[in-house]
Amino acid sequence: MSTAGQVIKCKDAVAWEAGKPLSIEEVEVAPPQKHEVRVKILFTSLCHTDVYFWEAKGQNTLFPRIFGHEAGGVVESVGEGVTDLKPGDHVLPIFTGECKECPHCLSEESNMCDLLRINNDRGGMIHDGKPRFSKDGKPIYHFLGTSTFKEYTVLHVGQVAKINPEAPLDKVFVLSCGMSTGFGATVNVAKPKKGQSVAVFGLGAVGLAAAEGARVSGASRIIGIDLNPNRFEEAKKFGCTEFVNPKDHDKPVQEMTGGGVDRSVECTGSIQAMISAFECVHDGWGVAVLVGVPSRDDAFKTSPMNFLNERTLKGTFFGNYKPRSDIPGVVEKYIKKELELDKFITHSIPFWEINKAFDYMLAGEGLRCVVRMDA
Amino acid sequence: MSTAGQVIKCKDAVAWEAGKPLSIEEVEVAPPQKHEVRVKILFTSLCHTDVYFWEAKGQNTLFPRIFGHEAGGVVESVGEGVTDLKPGDHVLPIFTGECKECPHCLSEESNMCDLLRINNDRGGMIHDGKPRFSKDGKPIYHFLGTSTFKEYTVLHVGQVAKINPEAPLDKVFVLSCGMSTGFGATVNVAKPKKGQSVAVFGLGAVGLAAAEGARVSGASRIIGIDLNPNRFEEAKKFGCTEFVNPKDHDKPVQEMTGGGVDRSVECTGSIQAMISAFECVHDGWGVAVLVGVPSRDDAFKTSPMNFLNERTLKGTFFGNYKPRSDIPGVVEKYIKKELELDKFITHSIPFWEINKAFDYMLAGEGLRCVVRMDA
Ligand SMILES: NC(=O)c1ccc[n+]([C@@H]2O[C@H](COP(=O)([O-])OP(=O)(O)OC[C@H]3O[C@@H](n4cnc5c(N)ncnc54)[C@H](O)[C@@H]3O)[C@@H](O)[C@H]2O)c1
Ligand SMILES: NC(=O)c1ccc[n+]([C@@H]2O[C@H](COP(=O)([O-])OP(=O)(O)OC[C@H]3O[C@@H](n4cnc5c(N)ncnc54)[C@H](O)[C@@H]3O)[C@@H](O)[C@H]2O)c1
Ligand SMILES: [Zn+2]
Ligand SMILES: [Zn+2]
Ligand SMILES: [Zn+2]
Ligand SMILES: [Zn+2]
Repeated sequence: MSTAGQVIKCKDAVAWEAGKPLSIEEVEVAPPQKHEVRVKILFTSLCHTDVYFWEAKGQNTLFPRIFGHEAGGVVESVGEGVTDLKPGDHVLPIFTGECKECPHCLSEESNMCDLLRINNDRGGMIHDGKPRFSKDGKPIYHFLGTSTFKEYTVLHVGQVAKINPEAPLDKVFVLSCGMSTGFGATVNVAKPKKGQSVAVFGLGAVGLAAAEGARVSGASRIIGIDLNPNRFEEAKKFGCTEFVNPKDHDKPVQEMTGGGVDRSVECTGSIQAMISAFECVHDGWGVAVLVGVPSRDDAFKTSPMNFLNERTLKGTFFGNYKPRSDIPGVVEKYIKKELELDKFITHSIPFWEINKAFDYMLAGEGLRCVVRMDA
Repeated sequence: MSTAGQVIKCKDAVAWEAGKPLSIEEVEVAPPQKHEVRVKILFTSLCHTDVYFWEAKGQNTLFPRIFGHEAGGVVESVGEGVTDLKPGDHVLPIFTGECKECPHCLSEESNMCDLLRINNDRGGMIHDGKPRFSKDGKPIYHFLGTSTFKEYTVLHVGQVAKINPEAPLDKVFVLSCGMSTGFGATVNVAKPKKGQSVAVFGLGAVGLAAAEGARVSGASRIIGIDLNPNRFEEAKKFGCTEFVNPKDHDKPVQEMTGGGVDRSVECTGSIQAMISAFECVHDGWGVAVLVGVPSRDDAFKTSPMNFLNERTLKGTFFGNYKPRSDIPGVVEKYIKKELELDKFITHSIPFWEINKAFDYMLAGEGLRCVVRMDA
């Protein structure tokens, strides 16, 4: 019996308030409206961006809310006007969408769609401003337009990347955020040349995906920087050749490289790491890329001479990939073994244990923990 | 009678102390040593960088000193080991040199030569650390390796660009600093695409050369920003289509352009203008370029979200031109009328009136004032 057009009752991990464990509850999911898609989530995982808004330190996060934005699933039904997706399609939800019509979508350089760019303040759908989720008649808010910590979610069609159904969803779902973000930050934005040196600040999944991008680009040295020394062993698998703990040094990267690295990618969210990542690139040609999501009141502060000495600083969301246009191609790279993803998945838990994924991340343990919805 | 190998006595404009009028005096100029060239200066002019170090606010500037770095002249004699220059060659002294051997000179991306990059702390020549200028046996210091406010100066061969002798030196000498810097900042670093919008902060000669670069690149809008409204009339000749006085507005450029300009070039030296120039570029693809020389203790401060939203910030010396490799080609552009220079020269004075050039610049009057050494 088809569920299309029907309200679906399903299990969700609801965040009732900031920083408190999620609670698995039955939630009602309305059918998709105009330009919307309802997706059955099969695999999801926690990214630090979820933790950041769940902790809601100094942020105005809406509650109750369903977090989650890194996931893979299958289209259950589509709303009015949806022509390029149909039930059964394998898809990745993406926190920053692509309307294919605005100046950003039409620009070769930007993926910051005017309509669908990352927006933490929006708790409902664009069509009518309302959430599609409710419990006992009370609304439960969406998160980044994705809300993947649930069995069924509703997304704007512009936030859904259709991928090759041959690709194993339990692996390629990590391309829905972290791995594409880190990998793209290196290959699309920092663009190291073969033989250049790359520093990666933060050796979580995003940072190690950035290191993977450096490895694939033929970097000669990949220097991993993290406050957590447990990361270093893991990082060797991702091509990191040297390690630095900022606690032990003042300006170690400059010293190790005699003047600075050619490229750096910051994947921590710490303002101090952002400043270090910029100041450690070589004058004349160094490029630094910011990826980490800063705290609201953080200020980036440096001497303007650091710019005048011909250093470049950029930032990126989602590694500058356009989700619908580019991600299917990144999935193909995995299929063709040009990109390794399996090593990012270090833990696996059933949905009802989702709070463990928060514990692992807060303890700095492992990289991605796959949350299996059907388990 | 040749002066080669002899000490030359000539007229210099000596700065005895910070911020005091220069005094024209007879100074002794030693012959060029190894890898050095002695040049007869024919035309020179004042750039804001001279004023900045002459004022020496919060700087450790050496005195007595001969300022000046924007000039054109003819080689008088060459020292040991100089093979690619000979007496009679037409040359432009350049404040940032090119040794052709260091990693920067070998890199396609950088013009920040390890040996000869801009260095305000050096008062003598690299060969022996000593100045070649003296008066009554007491040393007088060099400035940026150029010291062009004098009839004869001594330079490292790497700071001398040999140009086509057909080019009128009284015009192309402005390519020795300001015009190359501003023009190159736009065409080599900001790289606007045809039809894009460009904001230029500071409408002195450097800023208007940046505007000229935007015009040549086919920019659709060139927005000129200056605190001095007298600049606006002049700036129309340089392709500026709109004007903004920051005194009258808060975030005018963003409002005028509905989200920001595609490119901006800052040519003021004011930290506030540097921050505005960055924050006024469009998210997704905007690129801002810093050119102005900041005060020593200035801090560039902005929200890291401005980077994360896919804006790029860079800085440049001398418009990223390699002086010896690239400047002869820029001179050819002038000869072929692909680049206009005459309109930058708004005043002309004889050498003995050089202090007037400081008065004009401090009053914000005109653009470049050519100082004629033979007059
Ligand atoms: N721009 C984007 O599109 C985008 C997308 C996804 C994630 N992010 C952000 O990327 C960052 C990394 O995400 P993740 O999921 O890999 O997180 P994670 O928590 O798994 O990894 C972050 C790592 O940074 C380290 N770290 C923290 N402060 C540091 C410092 N000052 N110096 C060195 N190392 C430090 C931590 O020890 C940790 O190992 C987060 O800020 C996240 O919000 C951004
Ligand atoms: N990076 C390099 O290689 C390089 C080379 C040459 C000059 N410079 C620097 O470029 C800058 C410009 O040089 P110039 O010779 O054209 O100087 P200038 O004095 O002729 O022009 C500077 C202009 O900036 C304006 N201005 C000052 N503060 C401003 C503000 N806050 N907002 C808007 N406008 C403001 C002034 O009114 C003036 O019109 C100087 O800082 C100079 O030191 C850098
Ligand atoms: Zn994420
Ligand atoms: Zn769009
Ligand atoms: Zn100058
Ligand atoms: Zn060099």
